[in-house]
Amino acid sequence: MKSAQYKGDRTVDVGVSEAIAPAAGEARLEVAYCGICGTDIHIFHGAMDQRVDMPQIIGHEASAVVAEVGEGVTNVAVGDRVAVRPLFFGEPASFDKGHPHVGKNLKFIGIDMPGGMQSSWTVPAYTLHHLPESMDLQHGAMIEPAAVACHDVRLGDVQSGETCVVIGGGPIGLLIALVALEKGAKVILSEVNQTRLDLAASLGIEGVNPLNENLPEAVNRMTDGKMADCVFEVSGSAPGVEVMTELPNVRGRIVMVAIHPQPKPVNLFKFFWSEIKMIGARLYEEQDFDEAIQLAASGKLHLDKLITQVSPLEKVQEVFESIDANPDGIKYLIQCS
Amino acid sequence: MKSAQYKGDRTVDVGVSEAIAPAAGEARLEVAYCGICGTDIHIFHGAMDQRVDMPQIIGHEASAVVAEVGEGVTNVAVGDRVAVRPLFFGEPASFDKGHPHVGKNLKFIGIDMPGGMQSSWTVPAYTLHHLPESMDLQHGAMIEPAAVACHDVRLGDVQSGETCVVIGGGPIGLLIALVALEKGAKVILSEVNQTRLDLAASLGIEGVNPLNENLPEAVNRMTDGKMADCVFEVSGSAPGVEVMTELPNVRGRIVMVAIHPQPKPVNLFKFFWSEIKMIGARLYEEQDFDEAIQLAASGKLHLDKLITQVSPLEKVQEVFESIDANPDGIKYLIQCS
Repeated sequence: MKSAQYKGDRTVDVGVSEAIAPAAGEARLEVAYCGICGTDIHIFHGAMDQRVDMPQIIGHEASAVVAEVGEGVTNVAVGDRVAVRPLFFGEPASFDKGHPHVGKNLKFIGIDMPGGMQSSWTVPAYTLHHLPESMDLQHGAMIEPAAVACHDVRLGDVQSGETCVVIGGGPIGLLIALVALEKGAKVILSEVNQTRLDLAASLGIEGVNPLNENLPEAVNRMTDGKMADCVFEVSGSAPGVEVMTELPNVRGRIVMVAIHPQPKPVNLFKFFWSEIKMIGARLYEEQDFDEAIQLAASGKLHLDKLITQVSPLEKVQEVFESIDANPDGIKYLIQCS
Repeated sequence: MKSAQYKGDRTVDVGVSEAIAPAAGEARLEVAYCGICGTDIHIFHGAMDQRVDMPQIIGHEASAVVAEVGEGVTNVAVGDRVAVRPLFFGEPASFDKGHPHVGKNLKFIGIDMPGGMQSSWTVPAYTLHHLPESMDLQHGAMIEPAAVACHDVRLGDVQSGETCVVIGGGPIGLLIALVALEKGAKVILSEVNQTRLDLAASLGIEGVNPLNENLPEAVNRMTDGKMADCVFEVSGSAPGVEVMTELPNVRGRIVMVAIHPQPKPVNLFKFFWSEIKMIGARLYEEQDFDEAIQLAASGKLHLDKLITQVSPLEKVQEVFESIDANPDGIKYLIQCS
């Protein structure tokens, strides 16, 4: 059994790890593919060393086949193809309001507990979602980020006929754009990288490069002055935060998807003046995984075009280093089997 | 006919003005009382000179008796006691989404058009709401700020059993606290002025002075760790914005009531992490006036205790100057009849 273990100091070693027999309520998986998330890059950069116990097996965007089930497991059986919703719920706190994915006792599997970059992975069976037989397991590894996008679009309450602006065209931004298109919205992507804009265009997403064109003016022009109903801030950048409030019309929404570690100046006057709303969105709930699987199965998310590279687990260190060197890349998958 | 006219340079002159016969759809009012709003103070300070045509009759918190009605007016009759919802709706724009109070063509009566600090005032009849016969017209002049509070609490979707924190205990903050109490919420007021805290206590509102006590710690203690479901930022201060994100629990809401002319640093990470929401709230809609009148009539808003002083129109300059000198004051009314 092999695994990719983060050891600090920009190092992900490939090591041997033991297969763990599933306890009651658990399942042991043979992992097929595991995607690399922006969070994994943050871990690689050492930005989360205070949170991550080292060495830690990282990765949380996995597709797998069930190899063994523990006592009492009825939702999956050996041989089932699955995606993993990598959330470990502790005791629910009374004030989690039925949303344990943002609850007090949440642990994230792949950050706070061993993750999916290993050939054999034991997880609670409640984390598993069935994949259709017809789905490529490479696509199965993209259900997790697609579920993030479904969650963001759901919390943004995007309706058919509305206009969305997505600020930032990385993997999550592109997936949000594609999910919003599926809702029947008009979508405008703001992205500074021309290769990403070209990719977006090939997926049917209109783009604006805010380095070449004033974004609010472009949105005004592209919407006949109606501006945006829903804006997704996915860039994590100060210019993104500065421009996000210039885009919504009356009672428009901003979905805060990106992680901004430090406070940033926000135009609060615009909130008052046009009664706009900002909604924080994190991770996903069960229904978002269900929707992501259904959309992925329909082919509407064009997952093939979002996969930049697939590499064997043995090359994980090299892959992390190459991601840093390639701003054009979208999704890198690690083959774990 | 007398009126209070803002002429720039911290000057509100008392002048003579003509009674204007109501055109079709209009009503002429004999104004009883007109309250002084924070916005009027901003006008007095010259902060809105770019927007206000001078000389301008200011004031928008009025109670009145209908003196004359124009052609086609059926919703009010001569002798009716009314409060004025001081919003002039131009042509609705298609993207106002049915919310003309934040619409593109809104004019605010008392800022953009002549206001209520005059003995005879002609307004569109659709701005008028009936007051019960039993209601003191001094209380009637407080329907407008009470409607702001009803609107803010409605947009905050405050439910019985929830905990609200109101940051800032001026007239609007106190009214929000009182309306939220009426919804069955637990309410904590954060206010730096001890006289205002004492007044709040006399109205049954628990208070915290954030200069004496760490506000998040106090809210934690007062809620057994559950923190706030809904926070109202009414202070307009940088410390208010800094602390507002520390108070909500998972999926909590922040209602942005205050006017922050300049961008301020906001903890966007908290939005992401706990999926909190911020909702901008401005002015009111028809139903908020209806609710404010009903609450005021019930006596539950303790309007008597919120009135600091009632002065004749002739003393308006003096009143504006004394407001600046008295940080303890709440609501100053001008008698216009």
